[in-house]
Amino acid sequence: MTDSPAPETPESVEDEHRRVAGISAPDLLSEARRLDDADPLSPHLDAFVDAPGVSAYLDGNSLGRPLKELPEKVDAFIREDWGTRLIRSWDEQWMDLPMSLGDRIAQVCLGAAAGQTVVADSTSVLLYKLMHAAVAARPGRSEIVIEAGNFPTDRFIAAGVANETGATLRWVEPDPVSGVSVDDITAAVSERTSLVVLSHVDYRSGALADMPSITKAVHEAGALMLWDLCHSAGSVPMKLDEWGVDLAVGCTYKYLNGGPGSPAFAYLAKQHHGAVTQPIHGWWSAADIFAMGPEYAPVAGIRQLLSGTPPVLSMLAMQGMLDLLDDAGMTAVRAKSISLTDFAVRAYDELLAPLGVTLLSPRKASQRGGHITIGHDSFQDVTKKLWGEGVIPDFRFPDGIRLGLSPLSTSHEETLRGIVAVRDALA
Amino acid sequence: MTDSPAPETPESVEDEHRRVAGISAPDLLSEARRLDDADPLSPHLDAFVDAPGVSAYLDGNSLGRPLKELPEKVDAFIREDWGTRLIRSWDEQWMDLPMSLGDRIAQVCLGAAAGQTVVADSTSVLLYKLMHAAVAARPGRSEIVIEAGNFPTDRFIAAGVANETGATLRWVEPDPVSGVSVDDITAAVSERTSLVVLSHVDYRSGALADMPSITKAVHEAGALMLWDLCHSAGSVPMKLDEWGVDLAVGCTYKYLNGGPGSPAFAYLAKQHHGAVTQPIHGWWSAADIFAMGPEYAPVAGIRQLLSGTPPVLSMLAMQGMLDLLDDAGMTAVRAKSISLTDFAVRAYDELLAPLGVTLLSPRKASQRGGHITIGHDSFQDVTKKLWGEGVIPDFRFPDGIRLGLSPLSTSHEETLRGIVAVRDALA
Repeated sequence: MTDSPAPETPESVEDEHRRVAGISAPDLLSEARRLDDADPLSPHLDAFVDAPGVSAYLDGNSLGRPLKELPEKVDAFIREDWGTRLIRSWDEQWMDLPMSLGDRIAQVCLGAAAGQTVVADSTSVLLYKLMHAAVAARPGRSEIVIEAGNFPTDRFIAAGVANETGATLRWVEPDPVSGVSVDDITAAVSERTSLVVLSHVDYRSGALADMPSITKAVHEAGALMLWDLCHSAGSVPMKLDEWGVDLAVGCTYKYLNGGPGSPAFAYLAKQHHGAVTQPIHGWWSAADIFAMGPEYAPVAGIRQLLSGTPPVLSMLAMQGMLDLLDDAGMTAVRAKSISLTDFAVRAYDELLAPLGVTLLSPRKASQRGGHITIGHDSFQDVTKKLWGEGVIPDFRFPDGIRLGLSPLSTSHEETLRGIVAVRDALA
Repeated sequence: MTDSPAPETPESVEDEHRRVAGISAPDLLSEARRLDDADPLSPHLDAFVDAPGVSAYLDGNSLGRPLKELPEKVDAFIREDWGTRLIRSWDEQWMDLPMSLGDRIAQVCLGAAAGQTVVADSTSVLLYKLMHAAVAARPGRSEIVIEAGNFPTDRFIAAGVANETGATLRWVEPDPVSGVSVDDITAAVSERTSLVVLSHVDYRSGALADMPSITKAVHEAGALMLWDLCHSAGSVPMKLDEWGVDLAVGCTYKYLNGGPGSPAFAYLAKQHHGAVTQPIHGWWSAADIFAMGPEYAPVAGIRQLLSGTPPVLSMLAMQGMLDLLDDAGMTAVRAKSISLTDFAVRAYDELLAPLGVTLLSPRKASQRGGHITIGHDSFQDVTKKLWGEGVIPDFRFPDGIRLGLSPLSTSHEETLRGIVAVRDALA
């Protein structure tokens, strides 16, 4: 043991870089390590289950990684809460879970007060419920405004609801990289608009919409605003209450790490409670769930958005991640997210742009969410090859590789390993 | 060790009965033990997680017990399938799970060929989808026939769908104990009927409907038949294909032991594929899920019943139970079920009828499913007391105790312990 290590030659530093990371981009590697060393959230990297053979997981915005604590929690849940308390657990702890967990998401991620958010169903089913409710709340208005590049399920469900209710869709076609702007929306809304449906962060480009300004413009036209938060909840802070958002849905298996197909969440602002009802009148939306009475009477509060028995086991994993996000704080999470995407853009500029790869995301961090997308004709094949090697980005038809950099589980060095692997696969 | 145990006096046998089971009903206890000894399915009793402090779990038709093998399977799922294979597991094994697991339920429990069943959503949401689809498939017909005593979510959803589609509900009011008959249905259906919605096994009385005859009567009126199998799937064998059933939904957290709020299943007979579409057009119902194209085009097959991302973790637990049911065979499961409910009725006659408790279920085993219900004014308080003592039946407002005797996890002696505890609580 000595205080001053033996001085290294420049060659040996570079050799070590190559050996450890397989990365022949020493300046970027030094920078990645510097950023990781300075990252106040880096201790959280150790909170996730080890993935042997995976050198870079860059798809946390499709499926977040499980926490190390989860297997033990699920074991206790199966043996005790389910296996021993049995049906008594409904009375003891599960009845209120969709609402209490909704409140927790609202508090940690959404900037929303309690009593306005539930966890239930899937994003698609909740979109259907909220779109129907919103259209019914604006009688006499006949248009739903939606972005042509919105995620397919949003567009498909909107088309179905329009068809069922006699409404028409009005398409907004923003720039595919910079995403939807206030001007796009101001030009589209009118006294005919009942509802505007947009994604906070675009699932391809990662473009971040200006939620407060767009919501204001929609309200000025007398319409309701429904935000899809799938690609922002747990990654980009927001203030749904302060910004006057009417309705929102989001996903819990991306940045909330709820596990594959974990239930979605829905937000309905308090001022709409009572006035707005959803169409799937299951017993869990009734005023008294166990009255078993002859007539359906919806409950006044947010539970009205439920329909069937809540999926309790699927609501377990996200609880630990919400604790982690709360510990870190969404401001710090966003700062780390920006650091990761900024670094990814820098690595793209240096390593991939020279190979003809295009950047399909905004360059300015304030205009981006937590992922960036890059384009190249060969990316379908490249993705297949990378997956086999334990480098896991997401492929989006026809030619996009999406790098989803989940702030708490991804390091700058891991990000670089992924981008270097893309470069090597192209070379 | 000796071949012939020391002879016991009558007193010591009875003492032992009291000590072991706390049951002062020696003839019934001897009978329970004789039945358990002769039960070919008794080895399966050991397959379920131990429940310390629970002396009788008689609510397997509300929440089936977890299998002992489950914690280890979930652990492996979290570490390997989710934690290490990560997003790759969708391609490798999860994409087809809603359909392959649906096929497994169809094969083991429903008497249905592959390609007609999916696991998805909740019973309530699937009821909504199938009711909408059925009403749309019978244009020009304006009545949905439904039983007045059907489970609330069935009635509430039917009323909502009727309201949305301009249909009216026609109520059937059968005898509350013996349940709906063919004559009830023949008297209700007409050329105005689009759809008939009934439960195979009544959630209160346990009355078992005559599925083949009723389905035939409904078809003779030109209507479609939707069966709710929540209280029969995994307990009562059926032949959906042979009996010409059009549509069915069912629950997986009761006799299929899928865990609290595990997803439901839906059956849509092959001849309706293509002609019948459900209204929640999520991306998982599209012909090509990942094409992300501009227009919604539903897939031709059974996947059309899906909407959002399938809840993979919640589909794990039921798989082991389906293996167990398949091992046992549904004929043997039904025989055990009848033995349990027959024995429960005998114990009721001897121990509870003298105390003024009424039997709210059919006496004839062929007219019953897997549970029986008994009535007494004080049962709300009695249930609370019993739950505290580790005897767990189900209470159904206003005065019913429901004894759900899940065939693979319940013994005759356990059944008797529960009924004796009810007697003692009343005394």
